[in-house]
Amino acid sequence: MSEPWVKMVTAQTPTNIAVIKYWGKRDETLILPVNDSISITLDPAHLCTTTTVAVSPSFVQDRMWLNGKEISLSGGRYQNCLREIRARACDIEDKERGIKISKKDWEKLHVHIASYNNFPTAAGLASSAAGFACLVFALAKLMNAKEDNSELSAIARQGSGSACRSLFGGFVKWNMGKVEDGSDSLAIQVVDEKHWHDLVIIIAVDLQTIHSFAISWRNNSFFCDKLEIRGQRCIVSSREKETSSTTGMHETVETSLLLQHRAKEIVPKRIVQMEMSIKNRDFASFAHLTCADSNQFHAVCLDTCPPIFYMNDTSHRIISCVEKWNRSEGTPQVAYTFDAGPNAVLIAHNRKAAAQLLQKLLFYFPPNSDTQLNSYVLGDKSILKDAGIEDLKDVEALPPPSEIKDAARYKGDVSYFICTRPGRGPVLLSDESQALLSPETGLPK
Amino acid sequence: MSEPWVKMVTAQTPTNIAVIKYWGKRDETLILPVNDSISITLDPAHLCTTTTVAVSPSFVQDRMWLNGKEISLSGGRYQNCLREIRARACDIEDKERGIKISKKDWEKLHVHIASYNNFPTAAGLASSAAGFACLVFALAKLMNAKEDNSELSAIARQGSGSACRSLFGGFVKWNMGKVEDGSDSLAIQVVDEKHWHDLVIIIAVDLQTIHSFAISWRNNSFFCDKLEIRGQRCIVSSREKETSSTTGMHETVETSLLLQHRAKEIVPKRIVQMEMSIKNRDFASFAHLTCADSNQFHAVCLDTCPPIFYMNDTSHRIISCVEKWNRSEGTPQVAYTFDAGPNAVLIAHNRKAAAQLLQKLLFYFPPNSDTQLNSYVLGDKSILKDAGIEDLKDVEALPPPSEIKDAARYKGDVSYFICTRPGRGPVLLSDESQALLSPETGLPK
Repeated sequence: MSEPWVKMVTAQTPTNIAVIKYWGKRDETLILPVNDSISITLDPAHLCTTTTVAVSPSFVQDRMWLNGKEISLSGGRYQNCLREIRARACDIEDKERGIKISKKDWEKLHVHIASYNNFPTAAGLASSAAGFACLVFALAKLMNAKEDNSELSAIARQGSGSACRSLFGGFVKWNMGKVEDGSDSLAIQVVDEKHWHDLVIIIAVDLQTIHSFAISWRNNSFFCDKLEIRGQRCIVSSREKETSSTTGMHETVETSLLLQHRAKEIVPKRIVQMEMSIKNRDFASFAHLTCADSNQFHAVCLDTCPPIFYMNDTSHRIISCVEKWNRSEGTPQVAYTFDAGPNAVLIAHNRKAAAQLLQKLLFYFPPNSDTQLNSYVLGDKSILKDAGIEDLKDVEALPPPSEIKDAARYKGDVSYFICTRPGRGPVLLSDESQALLSPETGLPK
Repeated sequence: MSEPWVKMVTAQTPTNIAVIKYWGKRDETLILPVNDSISITLDPAHLCTTTTVAVSPSFVQDRMWLNGKEISLSGGRYQNCLREIRARACDIEDKERGIKISKKDWEKLHVHIASYNNFPTAAGLASSAAGFACLVFALAKLMNAKEDNSELSAIARQGSGSACRSLFGGFVKWNMGKVEDGSDSLAIQVVDEKHWHDLVIIIAVDLQTIHSFAISWRNNSFFCDKLEIRGQRCIVSSREKETSSTTGMHETVETSLLLQHRAKEIVPKRIVQMEMSIKNRDFASFAHLTCADSNQFHAVCLDTCPPIFYMNDTSHRIISCVEKWNRSEGTPQVAYTFDAGPNAVLIAHNRKAAAQLLQKLLFYFPPNSDTQLNSYVLGDKSILKDAGIEDLKDVEALPPPSEIKDAARYKGDVSYFICTRPGRGPVLLSDESQALLSPETGLPK
C-alpha cells in the first residue's frame, strides 16, 4: 500500500464517582495514592468520553483535539501515558488494507487523538477520569498492547489518578499498592454493573460548577465544553474556583494534620467494610460509609492550610434534605457523595426511592422560570415519569417533604439534574460513523 | 433591722472567643473537655453581660430574669451553679444596714437574679459564656465566697464549658484537668489584656445568626434579645439551625473518627505553641495557629454523623478574603476564627491592619441601602474613622482589594460588624444605678 493510510480505533469510556475517596498522593509523578479507594462506574449512556486514536505514516507529530479544539500534548501527564503505551505496543497487521506495523515502528509513528464528552457543561463532575481512561484504552487497542484492563489502569493512573477506576464497569477498587515503581497501584473490579443494578444515581449540578468550568479547563483538566451560565446569581468565591484537585490534594498532604490518620487508620477499615456492603448489597451500610467518607474527605480539605471548600450552601442543603429523609424513614433511602466540587451525587436504593428523591430535589430546587423541564432533568428521564412530573406546573405543585416544616425553595440554585445508574466499563466502537477523526485525513471530522 | 431588707451585688463579665477550640466533653454532667483550650476575652465595653443578684428573707423562691423576661431556673446547669456557690458561701455582715447572714443561713435564703446583655441581637456570638460566668461571679461576691477566679471558673464551667474562660481578662487557658471530680478543670490567665493591647477584633455577624437566634434561645442558651431580621434572604438550612453546640459536641464525640486524634495528638502541641505565640506577641504564629485550629474544629464537625455545618458561603468568602490578603502581604495581617455559627471573628495585628480589613469587608459586604452606617458598624467606631469611611457613599466608593480581580460584592449578606479588642475580666459595679433589680423590692427595675 503506497498511498498514505490512516489506521484508527474508537473507544468509549465511562466516568466514575468515588464512594471511598482518593485524596492525597504519596508520589506526585507516578500518581500513587495514600490510600485505597472504591468507586461506582456511571452509565456511559449519560456520562462518558468517546475517543478516536489514529496512526498514519503521514502524521508529522502527535496531536490532540478535545471537543473539536486542538490542545497541547506537551503536559507530563499526556507524555507519560503516550510513553507507557508505546512501550507496550506490539505488531499489528491489516492484510485487507496492506498495513503492517511492527513493534519497533511505533516509536517513529505519530498519533492523532480526538476526544469528546457526551455530557453537558460540567467540569468537576467527571474531572479527568473518563478522559485519560479512554485515551489509554484506545491507544492500547490501536497499538495491540496485550495488557489487561488492570494493567492499563496503572497507565491511565499516570494521567489522572481516578482515571484508573474508569477501566471497569460496576464497582471498582483502586489498590494503592506498595512497590516504588507503582506497578501494583491499579484498579480491579469488585463486582460488575449487573450485581446491584437497581441503584439509581441523581447528580445535582450546581450553578457554581458551570461558572468554574473555565478555570478547570485551564488547569489542564481533560474536559472542556462551551461555557454557559444559567440564572444570574454567581455564588463562586475566587478561592473555590482556583483549587484544582491536584493543587488541593498537594496542599492537604503538606498541611493537614488529620490526613495521615485518615489514610492509615480509618480508610483501610472502611475499604473492607465497603467491599462487604457492596458484595452483600447492604444499602444501609453502603450509605453510611459513603456519606461518612465523603464528609471526611471534605473535613481534611477544611483542615488544609489554606482551607479548601468544595461544598457550598446548596451542597449543605442537599445533605440536610437527605439526612432528614433517611432519619424519618428509619433506614437510609439515599446516600450522598461530593467530589472536588459542589455537585451532589445521590445514590438511591432503588427506583422508588429515586422517584421520591427527585420530587424532594425539585421541590427545593425548582428550575428558573425560563428553563424547560426537559433541559433541567437530563439522562434517564423515566425517573421523572415515576415521580409523576410531566411539566413545570407539576414541579410548582410539589408539596414540601413531610419531614420538614416550612421548607424554603431555592429556585435556580441548581443548574440541572442528571439521572443515571451504575454502568459498564470501556468498549470499542466498531461503527466507523462514530469515529471522531476522518479515515482519510486523520483530522477531526 | 426588722423590715425586710434586700442585699444586692451587680457584676459585669465579658464574653470570650476561643483561638484553640473546645469541642467535645469527656464528662457531660461535670462538663469536662477532651482537650485544653485558649481564648481571648473581648472588651466588655462592646460585648458583656451585666448581672445583679439579690438576697432577701422576703424572697420565697430562687427566680431569674433574662433581659427583663423571667426564665426558669430548673435546668441542671443553673442548679449546679447555685448549689456549688451556696456550698462555698460564708458569713456576711452589713453593720450599717444591720444585715447579718451566717454561713448556714444561705441554704435557707432565696436569691433573685437579673441578667442583661449589652450587645445587640447576636446568638452564637457569645453563646452562654458571659452569662454563666457573670452569674457565678456575682453570686460568689454576694455570698462572700473566698474562692479565687480560677476556683470560680470551675463552677461556671458546670453552667457552660466556655464560661470558665470569661473569669479573666486578656488571654485565658482552660486546663482540661485530670481528676474525676473536675476540680482541676479550670481557667487560668495566660497574660492580661494589656500584654497585647494593639490587637483589634472585628466580628462579622451573619444574617443567618439573627435568624437562628430563636432556636438558640429554646436550646437553653443564656442569652436572648428581640428577634429582628434585616433583609429578605434567609440562608439558613434547618439542619444548621438545630445543631446547638451541646448537641453537636455530643454527636461529634459519638461519631467522629478524627476527634480523638485531634484532642490527643494535635491540640496538646498547639496549646504549647499558642501560649508561646501569645507571650512573645508573635502574630504570624498566632494567626497561623488560630486559623488552623478554627478550620480543624469545623473539620471534625463535618466528620460528624450527620455532619454539622456551622460555616456558610459568607463565612467561606470572608476566609478567602483574609487568606488572599495575608498571602499577598507575605506575612499575616489578620487571623480568623469561627465558633458554632457562621459569624467571623477577625483578629487584626494592629489598628492599621484593622482599618484596611474593615475597608475590604465593607467592599465585599456593603450594607443594604436602608441601613445606616451607624447601625452597621458597631462597637469601637474609631476604626471606621481610621479607614476613612464616614458615610455610605464612602462605602460605595471603596475600590476592590488589589489582591483580587473582578471581586463581586455581597450586599446584605452580613447583618452588621462589631469592632472591639481584648478586654478585662469580671468586675463589680458599685454604682447602684447600674443594678438591674430594685433595692427595695428585689424585682427587676
